[in-house]
Amino acid sequence: MPEAKVKVALNGYGNIGKRCADSVALQDDMSLVGISDVVADYRVKMAAVKGYSIYASIPERIPDMEKADLEVAGTLEDLLKEVDIVIDATPAGIGAKNKPLYEKAGIKMIFQGGEKHEVAGHSFLAQSNYETALGRNATRVVSCNTTGICRVIGALHKKGWVKKVRAVLARRATDPWESHRGGIVNTFVPETHIPSHQGPDAQKVIPDLNIVTIAAKGPYNLSHMHFAMVETYGGVTKEDVIKTFEETPRLVLINAADGIEALNSLIELMRDMGRPRADLWEVGVWGDILDVHGDEIYLVYQVHNEAIVVPENVDAVRALTEIEPDVRKSMEKTDKALGIKKQFF
Amino acid sequence: MPEAKVKVALNGYGNIGKRCADSVALQDDMSLVGISDVVADYRVKMAAVKGYSIYASIPERIPDMEKADLEVAGTLEDLLKEVDIVIDATPAGIGAKNKPLYEKAGIKMIFQGGEKHEVAGHSFLAQSNYETALGRNATRVVSCNTTGICRVIGALHKKGWVKKVRAVLARRATDPWESHRGGIVNTFVPETHIPSHQGPDAQKVIPDLNIVTIAAKGPYNLSHMHFAMVETYGGVTKEDVIKTFEETPRLVLINAADGIEALNSLIELMRDMGRPRADLWEVGVWGDILDVHGDEIYLVYQVHNEAIVVPENVDAVRALTEIEPDVRKSMEKTDKALGIKKQFF
Repeated sequence: MPEAKVKVALNGYGNIGKRCADSVALQDDMSLVGISDVVADYRVKMAAVKGYSIYASIPERIPDMEKADLEVAGTLEDLLKEVDIVIDATPAGIGAKNKPLYEKAGIKMIFQGGEKHEVAGHSFLAQSNYETALGRNATRVVSCNTTGICRVIGALHKKGWVKKVRAVLARRATDPWESHRGGIVNTFVPETHIPSHQGPDAQKVIPDLNIVTIAAKGPYNLSHMHFAMVETYGGVTKEDVIKTFEETPRLVLINAADGIEALNSLIELMRDMGRPRADLWEVGVWGDILDVHGDEIYLVYQVHNEAIVVPENVDAVRALTEIEPDVRKSMEKTDKALGIKKQFF
Repeated sequence: MPEAKVKVALNGYGNIGKRCADSVALQDDMSLVGISDVVADYRVKMAAVKGYSIYASIPERIPDMEKADLEVAGTLEDLLKEVDIVIDATPAGIGAKNKPLYEKAGIKMIFQGGEKHEVAGHSFLAQSNYETALGRNATRVVSCNTTGICRVIGALHKKGWVKKVRAVLARRATDPWESHRGGIVNTFVPETHIPSHQGPDAQKVIPDLNIVTIAAKGPYNLSHMHFAMVETYGGVTKEDVIKTFEETPRLVLINAADGIEALNSLIELMRDMGRPRADLWEVGVWGDILDVHGDEIYLVYQVHNEAIVVPENVDAVRALTEIEPDVRKSMEKTDKALGIKKQFF
């Protein structure tokens, strides 16, 4: 363990940001110096209750934040002077606009999947390409769906089995915190371009993965469900697939026979487990649904959009700052601190 | 504190039961001897992971439970021999059928609001009538909606202000864990009888409360919303109401101005607070919505059906067994163990 902890700033205390902040604060080789945002609602007030120092991403917002009884420690620029690295979890597209600010401060940068690959020049998933991120100035943690694909399909691809993947992503329409501000009712909405962006995005992490994705959003807010049809070069059995998944980190085999019958069931299990915010950091792959017919593997799995990228952000901090050159050790450290499992019971 | 802890059994490890089990296990004057259920799904498997002893409410189910890798300690009857009191959280109507079994074991009994008042002969809400439950053989913790009404309206009633209450209860249609098994979509379904049962039920706790309730269920699963119009004898100001609520236990004033704009917002705050299962044990009353016009008080508040009755069950254990004769001390003990607040930030 390094003597001095890596000093981390979190900009954008939203759905992903608040989870990254909590998770960084749990690590013994990092310290969360502060969080920065532009509002003063219950979310940021709870950050203050947790003892996080609050900074203002837009200086003009300070009077409003102070009027709401928030103690503002300074501006985002002040915060950036105090840290080694920033996790940018601002809304899609804002990260790119923030980049010059981070560069000016001379610090390392982690962006989220809402930004284009080119903003960071590197797209990150710990178990796929941690090594290529070591010492870089910037990376981009790929989005929830891409993370799910890379973990599940990536595990099969590493075995050399994958000829072509066809996957349908049934996405949640909105998130719990903002469900009252808009969503969709009683319908399904397809994305109007095939492949949807997640397939090409997965190729940013695993360049030689042959994959096509079709995406749509449905009227629910508890994570995504993926249906993947993996064409192999042949000779792969169901047992081979199960065994591979048993050895894949951040992937848990679940069973409908245990009553885990739908998206809400697995989230309910996370509640019963006492997980913070009922977060599912792992991909949940249905072991008793998956099947192999001839040369094809058929898979159904659950990707929790609110949570799945959080451990990846923690690992990305270690990779960019090089406080841990070994991906396995970093992932083990993160998984232990958060409580990530290989099986739930 | 008594030297010997009160020994508690939990029968029916469902939505309410699993929470009561966890909450009893947190008290220093009670011990959870075991939980009993009829299934072997993920919920019961997680109870085993938590270290709870598992019993079978129906002996014929033991082979199925063992086939699912559950270690079954015995039957419900075996469990009842080991305890002083049982919390029955089985589905509505089953509690009445279980009563002879509990009587045969010679133990005290707590039923839930799904049972009729007559099953226990006493309906319980700690802050309203703890004293009348002291030493009784049985009580019934009233349902979530009735609990909400008695806490909020009961606080005004104690002041002698309430002439008549007219309340509309917009109930959730289903619970998260079973949302995939049925619910309603894009509609609102009124109960076909006025008053709905919650008004008369509140009178079981507060006999001289003049109240009419109308209920309906809506297409959501994150707690109930109540709209109450409280006709007073006059002379009550908004400040009087706010001050009363500030002094009422298990009631928190919340504000839309903090971004708590809907049912999902307050549940999101519970997630951010790290509450187990994102539970809201308190009633959340909107302080910046409530108003007083002439002789009427207008209120909007949120009742979390999954969680609100849980602290009441814990207090009911203390009242029936008389390990704590003082309601304030019991409530303080429960509230401290669970983390119940008077304000969130």
